[in-house]
Amino acid sequence: MVRNSSLSGFPEFLPQERIVELHILDIVRQQFELHGFSSLETRSVESLQDLSGKGETDKEIYLLQRLQNETTEKNLLNNQIGLHFDLTLPLARYVTENFGHLNFPFRRYQIQKVWRGERPQDGRAREFTQADIDIVGEENLSLKYDIELALVIIKTLQTLPIPPITLRINNRKLIEGFYRAIGIENILEVLQIVDKMEKIGSQKVFKLLQEKTNISAKQANFVLQLATIKSAGTEFVEQIEALQISHELIEEGLYELETFVKTTKEAANTKNKTLIVDLSIARGLDYYTGTVYETTMLGHENLGSICSGGRYANLAKTAKKTYPGVGMSIGITRLVSRILNTNLLTATRTVPTVVYIALYEDKQWVTAQKVANFLRNKNISVEVAVKAEKLGKQIRYADKRKIPFVWFINLDGTHEIKDIRTGKQQNVKIETWTPNEEDLKPQILATQQI
Amino acid sequence: MVRNSSLSGFPEFLPQERIVELHILDIVRQQFELHGFSSLETRSVESLQDLSGKGETDKEIYLLQRLQNETTEKNLLNNQIGLHFDLTLPLARYVTENFGHLNFPFRRYQIQKVWRGERPQDGRAREFTQADIDIVGEENLSLKYDIELALVIIKTLQTLPIPPITLRINNRKLIEGFYRAIGIENILEVLQIVDKMEKIGSQKVFKLLQEKTNISAKQANFVLQLATIKSAGTEFVEQIEALQISHELIEEGLYELETFVKTTKEAANTKNKTLIVDLSIARGLDYYTGTVYETTMLGHENLGSICSGGRYANLAKTAKKTYPGVGMSIGITRLVSRILNTNLLTATRTVPTVVYIALYEDKQWVTAQKVANFLRNKNISVEVAVKAEKLGKQIRYADKRKIPFVWFINLDGTHEIKDIRTGKQQNVKIETWTPNEEDLKPQILATQQI
Repeated sequence: MVRNSSLSGFPEFLPQERIVELHILDIVRQQFELHGFSSLETRSVESLQDLSGKGETDKEIYLLQRLQNETTEKNLLNNQIGLHFDLTLPLARYVTENFGHLNFPFRRYQIQKVWRGERPQDGRAREFTQADIDIVGEENLSLKYDIELALVIIKTLQTLPIPPITLRINNRKLIEGFYRAIGIENILEVLQIVDKMEKIGSQKVFKLLQEKTNISAKQANFVLQLATIKSAGTEFVEQIEALQISHELIEEGLYELETFVKTTKEAANTKNKTLIVDLSIARGLDYYTGTVYETTMLGHENLGSICSGGRYANLAKTAKKTYPGVGMSIGITRLVSRILNTNLLTATRTVPTVVYIALYEDKQWVTAQKVANFLRNKNISVEVAVKAEKLGKQIRYADKRKIPFVWFINLDGTHEIKDIRTGKQQNVKIETWTPNEEDLKPQILATQQI
Repeated sequence: MVRNSSLSGFPEFLPQERIVELHILDIVRQQFELHGFSSLETRSVESLQDLSGKGETDKEIYLLQRLQNETTEKNLLNNQIGLHFDLTLPLARYVTENFGHLNFPFRRYQIQKVWRGERPQDGRAREFTQADIDIVGEENLSLKYDIELALVIIKTLQTLPIPPITLRINNRKLIEGFYRAIGIENILEVLQIVDKMEKIGSQKVFKLLQEKTNISAKQANFVLQLATIKSAGTEFVEQIEALQISHELIEEGLYELETFVKTTKEAANTKNKTLIVDLSIARGLDYYTGTVYETTMLGHENLGSICSGGRYANLAKTAKKTYPGVGMSIGITRLVSRILNTNLLTATRTVPTVVYIALYEDKQWVTAQKVANFLRNKNISVEVAVKAEKLGKQIRYADKRKIPFVWFINLDGTHEIKDIRTGKQQNVKIETWTPNEEDLKPQILATQQI
């Protein structure tokens, strides 16, 4: 169980918890790179103008102000910079600034902190780490990339030591076409309410639609009929066609979603519930224009989505060109906090150290450093005792940290090693000794069936 | 040459530059872990109270303010939080909050962004990455740890593909004892001026000492005599004794510095100029109480220190205990910006991809994904073409990104691979093909003798 942080919304982990987080981050990075995505890191700040361009999210922005800057209230908002609240806006800005130096389609991943000033709650921090993956095209971007992104994310999340995931997809064209065809004008307003389906159920959604929008009961019924369609295969096509509503955007969306599902199922190792078409997925306020994605973790559906995203027809725009993009973002802090809070995973030790070199005499310290460096050159993490204290005390030092091996340099120049888990001690040669593969790094173990 | 960033002081790299930075970061992390240091990540913000406790640095703090928060000028400074300007203050705060959960001596490394609102210049950004390494004791901490830190840093920096470094050390006890013995009271004031020695020379330091402090010409002369002492071995001991000034802190400092130099030279692979005692190293305003470190890079002395730090007698304090610490911080952004600006290193490709799978027909895409996954499971980074365009065009896609291999799935089910650097094409089996070790990741090459 992660302790409460001393500043609400700004979580911090203990070293053994950080080992679990690093393990997750390392796998994510490795998978992204294995799929040919380049690392990118953007500055943490954007201009207020860019940050507030996205409408209602500007409530959550942290502005920066230099302590000694004598700024009046009035010009506080001019030329201001603030911390980014996601990694999509920075990507869009980066592309418009650097398009001449990039190869398109531009495949990048980005693992960074983001900040939102909203009220902290379970799964929602003020400072948190996101792992984003996007493909940005020049003028156009094939639907294949939407499918490829799903494949990358499914592979990545299935490689992590976490419960099975369900990737739920939808297509904005389909919803928008449907809403337009039945005469709904305030599409975003309706979408925001439909987005709450999972949390509050369809009856309450119906009620909210009646209270907060000007659509009729008949329209609201159609909206609900569409939003309750779910299918693991392509059954959704028939179910939607049965509603007998037609619009060219519906055709387009249906084609895209059907192609998506068919192709993904052929290409990926998708078990029963890995990929689901869910017509209630709306992604609220975000301006997606095609595919939208959300991901839940089995048994942790109440956590909300751990990986979301979608397609933007105009992710970035320059005077001459538009840059469409498709991307997804893994909520690392949300995921890792849940893993730690529910004890899903633990690290076998609190330090990277494999070998602790004990000292019989203080003057062995220099020799011990040389032995340590010899082992480090073989990629073995080593720490050297600082003082020739009683051996029992030196062994306890290692034991407390769960360092598996204590090394002794005998006064005759030979070496011995003790596995402090078994107590077994034996003679070794520094040239040939090497630990088992599984002792080389702290192991991350599942503490229950996942 | 790194382009100018669009926001002064907030540098951003291109993907191929980021590969160089990541390579540096990976080596640093690996070396820190091989020496038994645990990763730690703290929140990016601290309370203004903590941040401004350090005296004059509070000029540089970025305060955070929620955009929609209606805060009056007056209470703006109450209960405020700001971005951390280093990783030492967060460590001290973290230790006082979590001491019950940590094992001491606590060895941690921390690689994070820090922010300072000062005017940007060469080697000095407003947002930059630091890689810190510290050892924190409970009540006491042996001098051996000061020496061990030097060994870790020397090993780490010597493992990086950068020019040879010089680690310069001094001891605050020695200087403080000396100043006290000759009757100087405003020690920090004098230290700050002596700290400029390397930049402005001893004549100007003398002048400044006369103008800005109340010490006599005789005292200033003594200060300069001390500050100009440098030695690669333990010769400094005799040179200081020749000044015939005595104080118990001088004795202590001399003993520590002499032990440090002797032991480090015995334990480390220090070439001629790797370790130098330099009595002018003062580390200005920082409240170090013993060893102080600075590091320069051969041929890049004008960049200033790329790795600095020292010993704090009271890094952290709780009601019951004090926690001394010794640490150093590598200026990653400063180092990497210089490397990129002077073209010291370049990456052999702009993407992690090793193999690009071409398509003869669009419908091969699904098969190609399976081939790709097979190779990825062997740790080979693979990208799949999205469309069966003309082969020349597909090969150009790979060539532009310097992806070394293009893979063909023949319609009879056999496979061929083309090394696009040599043009050589051959039949391969997916089960057995594997690239040379040096093609597996982008190589980081030195573009000149370093």
